Amino acid sequence: MNIGIIGASGVVGMELIKLLEKNHLNINYSSVLLFGSERSVGKQIKFKDELLTINLLTEDIFKNLTVVIFCTGDDVSNKYIPIAIQKDCVCIDHSTNYRMNPQVPLVIPEINSFSIPGKNIIASPNCCTTMLCMVLFPLLELSNIEWVNVCTYQAASGAGIKGLNELKQQIRDYSNGNKLKTDYFKRQYLLNVFSHNSDLNAINGFNEEEIKIMEETKKILNVKVNPTCVRVPVLRSHCESVTIKFKSEVDLLEIHDKLATFPGVSLQDDKIQNKFPEPIDTENTFDIKVGRIRYSICDEENAHKVVNLFLSGDQLLKGAALNSYQILSYV
Amino acid sequence: MNIGIIGASGVVGMELIKLLEKNHLNINYSSVLLFGSERSVGKQIKFKDELLTINLLTEDIFKNLTVVIFCTGDDVSNKYIPIAIQKDCVCIDHSTNYRMNPQVPLVIPEINSFSIPGKNIIASPNCCTTMLCMVLFPLLELSNIEWVNVCTYQAASGAGIKGLNELKQQIRDYSNGNKLKTDYFKRQYLLNVFSHNSDLNAINGFNEEEIKIMEETKKILNVKVNPTCVRVPVLRSHCESVTIKFKSEVDLLEIHDKLATFPGVSLQDDKIQNKFPEPIDTENTFDIKVGRIRYSICDEENAHKVVNLFLSGDQLLKGAALNSYQILSYV
Repeated sequence: MNIGIIGASGVVGMELIKLLEKNHLNINYSSVLLFGSERSVGKQIKFKDELLTINLLTEDIFKNLTVVIFCTGDDVSNKYIPIAIQKDCVCIDHSTNYRMNPQVPLVIPEINSFSIPGKNIIASPNCCTTMLCMVLFPLLELSNIEWVNVCTYQAASGAGIKGLNELKQQIRDYSNGNKLKTDYFKRQYLLNVFSHNSDLNAINGFNEEEIKIMEETKKILNVKVNPTCVRVPVLRSHCESVTIKFKSEVDLLEIHDKLATFPGVSLQDDKIQNKFPEPIDTENTFDIKVGRIRYSICDEENAHKVVNLFLSGDQLLKGAALNSYQILSYV
Repeated sequence: MNIGIIGASGVVGMELIKLLEKNHLNINYSSVLLFGSERSVGKQIKFKDELLTINLLTEDIFKNLTVVIFCTGDDVSNKYIPIAIQKDCVCIDHSTNYRMNPQVPLVIPEINSFSIPGKNIIASPNCCTTMLCMVLFPLLELSNIEWVNVCTYQAASGAGIKGLNELKQQIRDYSNGNKLKTDYFKRQYLLNVFSHNSDLNAINGFNEEEIKIMEETKKILNVKVNPTCVRVPVLRSHCESVTIKFKSEVDLLEIHDKLATFPGVSLQDDKIQNKFPEPIDTENTFDIKVGRIRYSICDEENAHKVVNLFLSGDQLLKGAALNSYQILSYV
């Protein structure tokens, strides 16, 4: 298996290279080839004992590749995936292009790896969608879900290397008393909170990030979500504050049990020490951490049907690169 | 009217002194006297053309005071308010002591100033409660509310001067590559997000901040709230992501209209520029800013009954000092 990584110098591509290097799932591959735009061509990246060079992405690269992972935006995926599948490559795509295509499985391996074999395009979901579904899926064994409300606390690196670097630069500028550079997010990010920077739908008022969560969770789990996406000044790892309205009464101990035993999820729910999932703790880790599991107590009528929880996960790992690396193990 | 401020050197006390100095409501008072613990005794604070000195809080200070504003925690209020009312002082209290006492009005003047006259104790609500109620109250003219879901994005200064200074210190330490001091919050605050630092109720899993929002909103508006309180690395001004389930269908234009015309609330809902309330913009301002007003679209059955919005306000001003200064104008 020859693996091609498109967008190798981006934040997701870099994580994917590290995962392939360590290869904890022992995926059997012969080579890893890196591709990017003219901007990153020639860049060298350490991989095991060698240096891999990023080559220019062209229409001709696909003939020797078995699997191609697109860590790129919609434009690149849209242009090159049709070419890649003509050359019999299997494409794993991080862009939004194919996620809602009914012919394309939208995969979180812990949930629906069964839909991978035989497919030539496999879509990896939005980072917030993946983290949310990882927690909702095991709970669906206890009861159907009427609706889910989600408010996010999203990190700068979700916006890629430019977003990440701008927040880091603002810390330096702030400490030195310099004017803050606001080229990328167009506003002060440090010591601020703002509505997610993706475009808004003028008719329904939701931004693209929220629409992804809504549509993709519907496709993967057939669960209705009402999302609000917010950026907070964190470098890495997203958090989500989640309220779930179950159709039947659920038992909190059973929820604990389902989450604790689901692969890729771990509990951090220490009411005594007031220690719950924090982004600083989930950076560079694989699991989605969950805590603050409690019934809503304001509504007696729906007591034991409405449950709150708070999760945090590394959006570059399980939210992106780890998920596609896991998909690769099923191809 | 002789006004006493207890806890004058704290973050709320300092804001109150500034408000009394500018006195935009033209409250007719003869003197302002400042009191504090031994730690702050002797500290001098500029007030108009004079320097006011903080005196020691003792049981004897109340005889010459007309109104006393307690910008202190539960212990101080609990001990001194009974003494103050025996000396015929009117007490305005920022602590939680009296908020849920059925004899004591819990006042946001725009909502229930009618309950002030003749009372010797008036409680000012929790900061998040006040901001939330300012937005819910005008909407109750459109429909009853079945429930409200709130996730907060709360600033360091909500935890007082020590919390604020620790976050500032962490910015300096981080930029200089020093180990971060974590004396107060017991964790990295900069570039992190964590569950509110108030004590947790081990039985229901809610922290004290959340319980205040729940109980106080019930008392003020008889509305059920399901809150999740989270600290974010912001110096000042809280945000709240709010979902409201109305009992009847509501019209978004009417919601806009009710909010835009309610005193103390202003709209910032620019879908084209992606410009919504941010804490950096509401610092040191009086109004609660509201935006991102939109129906939840995931549930056809309840279309036009579930509305999301996002608010931000200065928790030291309308969330605390401005509210008690306004109460003072009705005493």
